[in-house]
Order: sequence, then C-alpha cells, then structure tokens
Amino acid sequence: MDQVISSLKASQSQALDELFEFLRIPSVSADSQFKPAMQQCADFVLKAMQAAGLTAEIITTKGHPIVYGERIEDASLPTVLIYGHYDVQPPDPLDLWTTPPFEPQIRDGKVFARGATDDKGQVFTHLKSLQACIDVNGKLPVNVKFLIEGEEEVGSDNLDKFLEQSKDRLKADIAVISDTSQYGDGIPAITYGLRGIVAAEVRLTGPSKDLHSGVYGGSIANPANAIAALCGSLVDATGRVQIPGFYDDVAELTEAEKQQFEALPFSESEFLNEIGSGAVFGEDGYSTLERRWTRPTCDINGIVSGYTGEGPKTIVPSKASAKITCRMVPNQNPEKILDSLETFLRDQCPAGLKFEFLRFHGCEGFVLDPTSPWISAASEAVEAAFGKSPVFIREGGSIPVVSSFQQILGIDTLLLGWGRNTDNLHSPDEHFHVEDFHNGTLASAYLWEKLGAVKAS
Amino acid sequence: MDQVISSLKASQSQALDELFEFLRIPSVSADSQFKPAMQQCADFVLKAMQAAGLTAEIITTKGHPIVYGERIEDASLPTVLIYGHYDVQPPDPLDLWTTPPFEPQIRDGKVFARGATDDKGQVFTHLKSLQACIDVNGKLPVNVKFLIEGEEEVGSDNLDKFLEQSKDRLKADIAVISDTSQYGDGIPAITYGLRGIVAAEVRLTGPSKDLHSGVYGGSIANPANAIAALCGSLVDATGRVQIPGFYDDVAELTEAEKQQFEALPFSESEFLNEIGSGAVFGEDGYSTLERRWTRPTCDINGIVSGYTGEGPKTIVPSKASAKITCRMVPNQNPEKILDSLETFLRDQCPAGLKFEFLRFHGCEGFVLDPTSPWISAASEAVEAAFGKSPVFIREGGSIPVVSSFQQILGIDTLLLGWGRNTDNLHSPDEHFHVEDFHNGTLASAYLWEKLGAVKAS
Repeated sequence: MDQVISSLKASQSQALDELFEFLRIPSVSADSQFKPAMQQCADFVLKAMQAAGLTAEIITTKGHPIVYGERIEDASLPTVLIYGHYDVQPPDPLDLWTTPPFEPQIRDGKVFARGATDDKGQVFTHLKSLQACIDVNGKLPVNVKFLIEGEEEVGSDNLDKFLEQSKDRLKADIAVISDTSQYGDGIPAITYGLRGIVAAEVRLTGPSKDLHSGVYGGSIANPANAIAALCGSLVDATGRVQIPGFYDDVAELTEAEKQQFEALPFSESEFLNEIGSGAVFGEDGYSTLERRWTRPTCDINGIVSGYTGEGPKTIVPSKASAKITCRMVPNQNPEKILDSLETFLRDQCPAGLKFEFLRFHGCEGFVLDPTSPWISAASEAVEAAFGKSPVFIREGGSIPVVSSFQQILGIDTLLLGWGRNTDNLHSPDEHFHVEDFHNGTLASAYLWEKLGAVKAS
Repeated sequence: MDQVISSLKASQSQALDELFEFLRIPSVSADSQFKPAMQQCADFVLKAMQAAGLTAEIITTKGHPIVYGERIEDASLPTVLIYGHYDVQPPDPLDLWTTPPFEPQIRDGKVFARGATDDKGQVFTHLKSLQACIDVNGKLPVNVKFLIEGEEEVGSDNLDKFLEQSKDRLKADIAVISDTSQYGDGIPAITYGLRGIVAAEVRLTGPSKDLHSGVYGGSIANPANAIAALCGSLVDATGRVQIPGFYDDVAELTEAEKQQFEALPFSESEFLNEIGSGAVFGEDGYSTLERRWTRPTCDINGIVSGYTGEGPKTIVPSKASAKITCRMVPNQNPEKILDSLETFLRDQCPAGLKFEFLRFHGCEGFVLDPTSPWISAASEAVEAAFGKSPVFIREGGSIPVVSSFQQILGIDTLLLGWGRNTDNLHSPDEHFHVEDFHNGTLASAYLWEKLGAVKAS
C-alpha cells in the first residue's frame, strides 16, 4: 500500500494535467449544441478507464451514453460499484466567471472550471487511485464495477432502465459515490443518510372564466381561497405536518446520532446570515440540523391563482394550482404518503370545484447503519488520507441514484464527498481545492484496501 | 305631463339621431390617443345640456373634463343631482364586433355601439326628458344639477376632489344614476343597495433567494406555506369569514326583503350554466341572491409564490403575496375591517418572515330605505313608463360614486337602470334596446314630476 501511496504522490502533477484535459471538454448535458462534446467526453472516460486497467465500453442510451468499466479480480473479494457522472451543469451566466468555465486554471490552491468538483474532479480521484493500485500491484484488493453516466444534471432519465437491464452484471456488495461534500473546511465527512422526496401538483378549477368578485363573490367556491385552505392545512403553526399517518413510519434518531449531530460545529447565526433569513422555524423538539437532515417536511414549492400584477383586481379566479413536495426520511413509503396527501386534500375541496392531483417521480429516503463494517472501512480510509477521522452526517436532499441502487440492485451506498459546500456547485467560478483532489485520490486508494478487507474479516 | 309625454313620443326618431351623434364620438378615456375625442365629447355634452335648457360649463381636471349643468327653478322644490359618464370602455377586440363600435347601427330593435348602454344611451334619456319638460312647460318640477364625468371607466380619479371643492354648489336632496340594469327582460328594477369593498395585498418575504427544499426544508418558515395558511384561514369550510369582528356591524335583511328576493325569478341551474360552475357555495342559511347582494365576503383575487411552470421544482420560495378583497355590506366600516384583517393575518405570520400589508382605496356599502318616498316616487315613474312596477333589488358590486355622494355630499342615490345585464357592457357588440331607450326617457320625465312632489307631500 505504501508503494501505491508513494506512486500517487509522485504523479500528482500529471494527475492534475489529465484532470484539466477532462475539464476542457464542455460536456453540458442540458444543451443539445454540446452533443458532440458529450460523445467526446464519454470517449475520454472510456480511455481513462482502459488506461487504469479496466475492461470498459460505451453503452448507448436514448440520451447521452453511459461509460461502464469493470475489473473482477476474484469472486471471493467484495465487489464495489462506483458511480459518477461526466456531464456538467450549463456554465451560464458566463460573465460571472473570473476565467472561462472550460479553461481550467489554478488560483489560490483551487482548480477553477465547470465540473471541477461536480463531478469530474471527484470521479477522477477514483480513476487515478485504481490505476495506481493496478500499476503497482498488478491487481486490486476488490472487484470494481465503474458506472459513469452523462445525464445526472438532467434527471438521469435513462439510468434506471440500464440498471434494470443489467442487474446481474452490476451485482455488487456496496456502492461508492463521491458527489457530496465534506462537512466544512478541514472536516471530512461520510454522509450516511439522505431524505427521499415525493412531488405532486394540485389543480382546482372553478368557473369557466374569472368572474367579477362583486357580482358573484360569496355565492360560489373561489379556487384561490380553496387552494390556500388546502395548502395552508398541510403544516400547522408549530411546523408539524398534518397529513394523516404522515409520521407513522418515521424512524426516530438514536441517542447516539443526536449526540453526534450536537457535537458538530454549527452556528445558527451564520446559517441564517447565509440564507438571508431572520429566524429558524420548524418542528418542536428538534435542532436545525436534525430538521434539515432527519425530519420529513411538506413544502409548497409554488402556488398561483388569479391576478398577480400591480394593484388590486376584483375577480374570483377561475383556476388555482400548487406544487407540493414532501421530503421523506427512511422507512416512509412514497406511495403511501402521496395517497394520504391526495385524500387529505381532496376531502377538503369545496363543492363546485374540480380537483386534480398530479404525481411526479420521487424516491425513498436512505440511511446506512453507521455501525456497518463498510462505514468503518470508509472511515479508516478517509482518516488515513485526510489526517483526521471523518464526521458522520446526513443530508436533507435526495440523490435518486442511491434510491435506485437500493431498489433495483439491493445495495447500500457509501457517500464519500471530497468537495466542499462552498465550491460553487452549479454556480459561476465552480472550483475544487487541489488539496481535496489529492487527498481524495489517496482516500480512494485506501478505500479499496479497507473495503477489500471487509468480507475477509 | 301628458304633453311632455306626447312630445317625447313624437320626437323619438330625432332623439335616436342625436344619440347616434353622441355614440359616434370615440370617447375612450383609457387610451391617450383618444384625448381629442374626449374633449369633443365633453363639448357635445355641454351643447346638449344647453340645448335642454340648462346653464352648463366644462370643468377641467387633471384628467378628462367634467361637464356640469344646472337649472334651479325654485328653492322650495327638491333638488336632484343627476350623475352619468360620457367616457366609454376601449372597444377591443375590434374583430369581434359585427359592425364598427363607433358607427352605431340598429339591428333587431337594438342600437349597437360602444357606450350604447354604458353610459351614453342612459345619460341621454335624462337629457332628452329635461329638454322636453322645459320645452313644453317652460320649467321643471324639480331643480336639477347634472354632472357628467369623463373618467368613470378609469377609476374616477378626479371626481372626489371636484365633489369636495363643490360641496355647496352640488347641494341636493337626492341623486339619480342610470348606469345599472333591469333585473331581467321585461322586469324593470330599482337597485336600492350595493356592497362596498376593501382591498389589500399581503407580502411575505423569507430567505433572500429561493432555497433548495432538500437542504433547507423543515428548518425555516416557507413563505408559500405561510401565505396559504394565512389566506386559507380567512373563510371556513362553510363559507363563513373568520376575521375577528367581521360580522359585528352587518345589518341583517328584513323579513320583507327576504320575501322580496325569494319572489324574484331566479334559476340556479341557469346561473351555474352561465358561469360554467358545478355548484353554488356560500354561507349557510342564505340564498344565492342573498349571498351575492347582501352578505359580506372575503375573496382571494390572486396569489403567487415560487415556481409555477411545468413539472416540479424543489425549492423553498423566497417570497409570496396575495391580493384580498372584502365585499362589505351597509354598516360595515372599511377601516375597521382592514385593521382587523391586518391584525388577523399578521398574528399568524411565522417567525423569520417579513410581513407587509398594503391597503388600496375602497368604499362603503350602500342601502336606501326601500320605504323612502324617493323610492316610491321612482317606482311610480318606472311603472308609468314601462307599464309594470319595478322590482327592488340590490347589487353585489360597488359603485364608488354612490359612496362618494353619501360621504362627501351626504345624499342617497336612486339607481335607476334602463339597460339589461345582457347588453354586452364592456364587451364587443355592446347594445341598448331601442325600447329601453324610449321607455327610459319617458320614465325620466315622469321621475322629475314624481320627485318634485316628494317634498310637497
């Protein structure tokens, strides 16, 4: 192992050069004018996998191609499924970039480029660590299956189909994704839980056109009043969701988890300052981190009805609609929550209004037992590379692929993020600390060793 | 009086010709390109007043001119303030007119033109009746003060100022306005009550920008949820307004009024069909006509927050706002209602959101004692002209000038509408039945006689 680490340290400059080449390809999946660049980027990834020593191929989809590589050393070793994406967010607005988004540059110890941290830089740490292990030892301490898609930033529309079709081929013991962040500067983290999500839209239709509120007001149901009443009933004044049965399946935090979160450095005033808000608000009895990471929510994401211009307009609107998402925690069932939400709202709809309920694709919450051997292995790897043991955190957002791995392949995921929250993901001047890139590569190398020991132990 | 009526009947064809001249002037107050036409129309009204035998003048305002004429016969006679407007709604969309809006034409016994019923045709009935009375008798049975403004369709911005400045000059015993409708075909009506209105806008501001609902949801107040909760609390599931004290000052209907409304022909299925709605909805214990005419309301006229496009978007919106109007019935105080509304909403605003409450101009409700001698006089006049006694109705809308006459001049208003609800007011193919024009002119002549007798009795 020492030799692998030495080799990686000796080739850091070259690794950066290669990363720059990766970053120069404008692989914007959302914009069809970049379609040739997407193909070029998939080819780059293919060659990088092959150079690392994997057997690799490009898999075409209805959208952008998936690149898949693997190296099976020994059926008795654990098999790790590594996931990443080579597509990036659109770089707009361009004028807010200090240097062009596809001309990577190092300033202040950071690589500036679109995709530097999300997710090319992080993906590249695994490619380089695998290559070093194979170069030095001629083999890996684990079997690896490496899946890099090109549609993460546009919803991964074709990924689940590939997973379904390739269940046997993708069989693995654990998945690894590096597309999250450390907890803070100098605080590496393992994200062991995510919230899931369900999304819906409610549409109410009343009279066939907007009516004069003087002539008709008071005699027919007003869709704007009704959408407000329906949506306003979802969460009470203490922040508690009112959908019947909503909390039935919620797994409460263990005392150990609560203490762990309490021990994390967190400044409420900095948090409020960052988002420009005057006060926190949420369910009684939970800290802000607990509310964000471990409690289910029901948020109105949008609502509209009637006249929204300047001044007053005396109408009873014809239509009203609202977008609703619930963040779910592990153990809550998306279909059950949506069914209960729909019934709860439908039952409150006044006479004379047409009620429609649209469901959008969602995913379940996720939590990995923090005492699992995979977590211990990952923790040791991170500590060996970053010089300190990682903290165990959750995230409030959802990573649908984690849910897909669970649902379709039946495996858990280790979320090992080498980046930082402040890396300007999805914004101008996205960057990745050079130090994080190198440490992440070392952590990745240690990870294969530690994971390889899990089944053997 | 018989001679006046004979004279009016003999000159019906000429009266129509003169009305056509009035209708040919495109006096669109909303559109500055018609400014010369507005002046031309004011001149036309001035000359018509003078031709009728009134002393008249044009009064300039910051906007379009007011035309004012008067004839004081005898201080012992009642003084009637007649109000109307010479401006019209914009005629768009032009392609939906069968014949051009400013080229009046008679088809099927109706005069088609913009302003035919609203309000030039109705105003003209009073001009012609006054002229006939003076021509035949050399004098009027009442003193008249005739005020015709040019900004009714754009909010009458300069009218109240004129009323304030001319309090003494405009001193009168009763006002007459013909800018409403009969109850139905062949059912002439006197409108003795109107609802008032107050209007407000609520704005909530949370985080300084839209936030990721996964990362932040559950830990800060969501302005969209909050605007829904606030607005949803205004009216309960039975249609009852929940603002504290809202019904305290509401004058309940008398048994006589209830019976009167019950006796009116009204088809709920036709009503629902007309507005394209599936069911009526409103306060328990009141009929649809009672709900529309005599009960106060609280309607959301518009609401908006966050994402309102296609599909889901996982945000906690930064802002939310809603427009609210309350229709008020006589005796309710606008300021008191707005104060209570503001407090009610402000008290429910969750921590961390900025609450703003904007007030717009409103007006009080109005009701004229149906047993008043003015009503009896008007009723007799309508019956004499239309051949049947009018029904007594209210309207759910507001006519701000009625409130201004009450507040500023201290006088009640007789709302005597010769038109019909089906005359396409504010729409293409606006029209006025020739029969209604002639009967209205006769009713107007009878009205001066009957009103002249009120004080004497």
